[in-house]
Amino acid sequence: MKQPERRTFLRNTGLAITAAALSEPLAPAAAQTSAGVPTAVTAKLARFIVSTRYEDLPDTVRHEAKRTLLNWVGCAIGGSPQETVGNAVAALAPFTGSREATLFGRAERMDALNAALLNGISSHVLDFDDTHAQTAIHPAAPIAPAILALAEHRPVSGRELIGALVVGVETECRIGIAVSPSHYETGWHITGTAGAFGSAAAAGKLLGLTEQQMAWALGLAAAQPVGLQEMFGSMTKSFHPGKTAQNGLTAALLASKGFTASEQALEARRGWLKMMSTEPNYAALTNDGWELLRNSYKPFACGLVVHPVIDGCIQLRNRDRLTADMIDRIEVSVHPRVMLVTAIKDPKTGLEAKFSVYHAAAVALVDGAAGEQQFSDESVRVPAIMELRKRVVPTVDPTIGKEQARVTILLKNGKQLALFVEHAVGSVENPMSDRQLEDKFGGLADGILPAGQTRELIDLCWRTDTLADAGDIARKAGKA
Amino acid sequence: MKQPERRTFLRNTGLAITAAALSEPLAPAAAQTSAGVPTAVTAKLARFIVSTRYEDLPDTVRHEAKRTLLNWVGCAIGGSPQETVGNAVAALAPFTGSREATLFGRAERMDALNAALLNGISSHVLDFDDTHAQTAIHPAAPIAPAILALAEHRPVSGRELIGALVVGVETECRIGIAVSPSHYETGWHITGTAGAFGSAAAAGKLLGLTEQQMAWALGLAAAQPVGLQEMFGSMTKSFHPGKTAQNGLTAALLASKGFTASEQALEARRGWLKMMSTEPNYAALTNDGWELLRNSYKPFACGLVVHPVIDGCIQLRNRDRLTADMIDRIEVSVHPRVMLVTAIKDPKTGLEAKFSVYHAAAVALVDGAAGEQQFSDESVRVPAIMELRKRVVPTVDPTIGKEQARVTILLKNGKQLALFVEHAVGSVENPMSDRQLEDKFGGLADGILPAGQTRELIDLCWRTDTLADAGDIARKAGKA
Repeated sequence: MKQPERRTFLRNTGLAITAAALSEPLAPAAAQTSAGVPTAVTAKLARFIVSTRYEDLPDTVRHEAKRTLLNWVGCAIGGSPQETVGNAVAALAPFTGSREATLFGRAERMDALNAALLNGISSHVLDFDDTHAQTAIHPAAPIAPAILALAEHRPVSGRELIGALVVGVETECRIGIAVSPSHYETGWHITGTAGAFGSAAAAGKLLGLTEQQMAWALGLAAAQPVGLQEMFGSMTKSFHPGKTAQNGLTAALLASKGFTASEQALEARRGWLKMMSTEPNYAALTNDGWELLRNSYKPFACGLVVHPVIDGCIQLRNRDRLTADMIDRIEVSVHPRVMLVTAIKDPKTGLEAKFSVYHAAAVALVDGAAGEQQFSDESVRVPAIMELRKRVVPTVDPTIGKEQARVTILLKNGKQLALFVEHAVGSVENPMSDRQLEDKFGGLADGILPAGQTRELIDLCWRTDTLADAGDIARKAGKA
Repeated sequence: MKQPERRTFLRNTGLAITAAALSEPLAPAAAQTSAGVPTAVTAKLARFIVSTRYEDLPDTVRHEAKRTLLNWVGCAIGGSPQETVGNAVAALAPFTGSREATLFGRAERMDALNAALLNGISSHVLDFDDTHAQTAIHPAAPIAPAILALAEHRPVSGRELIGALVVGVETECRIGIAVSPSHYETGWHITGTAGAFGSAAAAGKLLGLTEQQMAWALGLAAAQPVGLQEMFGSMTKSFHPGKTAQNGLTAALLASKGFTASEQALEARRGWLKMMSTEPNYAALTNDGWELLRNSYKPFACGLVVHPVIDGCIQLRNRDRLTADMIDRIEVSVHPRVMLVTAIKDPKTGLEAKFSVYHAAAVALVDGAAGEQQFSDESVRVPAIMELRKRVVPTVDPTIGKEQARVTILLKNGKQLALFVEHAVGSVENPMSDRQLEDKFGGLADGILPAGQTRELIDLCWRTDTLADAGDIARKAGKA
């Protein structure tokens, strides 16, 4: 080395204020904490991440982690043939390093950093991944691709992987809560901003960072928020979680080699919380409890807003063995937002169908399902579905909650069937069963992986805690 | 492909609003522009970038581009042995792809994306790179590492390289002006935030993007701001420009393969300017004129604040052939900020010396220079310098400007010498000469590259506009 590193010294001696003046306008308060703000919350969070072990996790949390993992793996496979993923692979393949890590659902292999990015994109592109309702964070997408790619770079056990996933989710959700709701309202895509902390925490956990290194990794994550809501409707929306997965992994790798950052990135006077929220809630950072238990999984491949209607239609169809030709009229009473966003009467494409309560109700009654296949360009042209969606009559009812719907079906024989959905399936109150998650996985992987491989992969996810090498999951998720 | 890409459709049909509702809380105004905001400024900027050619540039701009390049290459070499760079290389080397791109001043080679990151870090770690005073952007650090690495990946001419550098600087500085001063005051490190646009524009220019692709590249850049001032004093400060260079290059590569983003990232109602500034100045985005002509280069390896004192001391030393033993007392009248940030009387390390007006004045008189060597740990222990800095007497004078200083030297023989510095050397009004830039380069490369190689490299930079392959510059900057 030419000379000793100077930056660390600054931090260690409190000279950081004057460091700014080396070449930047004076920022007199940088690196100082504010009056009334809890001290050392970044350090406390780092300690939580470093000290929490798989052995400390309640069984409910361990099991939910496996459900989160299973759901995420299915989404990453299901999204893999999308043009969004293909374009990104084409752009980055010329730069990839050793082909050590799997691209889920695809035949290519890439280095772990590129795989984290691409699998993150793939897992979010269908908008079918998990949701932490309070923050709107999609918890798995920033974390799972980073730690599974890392597991292919240097082997870790399945229990280590679960432990890392859990501390990652807790970290990003706590930080997300701490900046909500103003952060999202400002226009940030919170999965890509708070998600970086989850990825850095989880990857850092697998790398065995010390508490100080973990604080640096969180600092490096703070310096790299990704994601504007303005990008919704473009491919860049799914780039956000992928990039933040890659950034968090990079942060952890750098910190593991002594790359320093502020150790008070969250609470500093010009730290992440103050910059990212008008009313930072510092207490949320050190709350007890497991946010992972508030994670939820989408049963249907469309916006949550229309899920209660679909749920009610499928229930009535199955309960009363309905077929399309029996039905005269379908009356649905819905929350006002439903008609703000899903009012397309005669969708011409699969995408338009996702914004049509008419199509959603009809296809649920015809197919008894609402997966990607039910929102395809082919599905909107099926005569029975086209015929039935003309018979759907939605009514806005302000007394109906977001998770609720009232479905009333009038049959041609004069009978009337009715059902009130209190909490749509997939909500925290009415979660998808393990079996439903498996079925969803099967639908996503169908046509991409052979059925036998899909079955083995589902089993591997459920057996994560017994795996000596968690990279087995990633390797099983690729095409031969 | 499994099914046609759906996101592009959304953007094209104005359905972006409802896209948000697929899985996110309703963001009714996303992707809309505000009343009173100029329309299509992102598109106009994209058109400027795509249409501006080397042939259109005034000679002054072409020459300034070469000066900016020369200064940046020297800084990247000078920073290369720092621990900051070494740690980052250690962390990322296991993931690098083909070893096509040079790490400046080092023996390692990496893929272009990793080289952009590492050379960006290296070029900023000494805080010795160029400055655009109005915005505090360091213009070259986000751009030059991206386009030189890209030039090693796919050959471009020297004129193309200069054209790309110029449009990159114009883009990032215009955007920087548009969010100043509130953006910096909020706590962002503007070189890493606005810099992403410069990198994306310059790399996109070399890749031959269409106007629409360039708008996507700008959108992808908008989604990835890097850099908090809270990181000043840690290694992460120099990570900021490196990472933003890498992100901008990634954005351009993705856009070149059809990866879509919002085409109104800057002006949208929840676009980058509104999110990043309390008073966005949209007109600045389409201003005429060349911000590159307002770029400046540091002659001395310390904060700009103390440059006028150093300049005055060196001028008096040279004018009157002063030696340390002739001097009884050095009185300096300075701007108030000087004593806020450089008041260390008896520095113990090279870094502390950068915050000591006493050391700065003394070493300038003894050595007639103030490069990295003058702010080394060895330099603070040289007896003649230690002796002389006791004789420095600073006085704060509120009438003295930031670029000014009054230096009065009382000699042991009773004579008194005085000089008033109106604009310190290195300012836009009193720029370093080409020869001074070469001397600075020589000092930075000394001990890292052989003198003959350094000379050839300087010549290559001056001859950039004649090079058939601009990658020659990068290749010449590496160690064998």
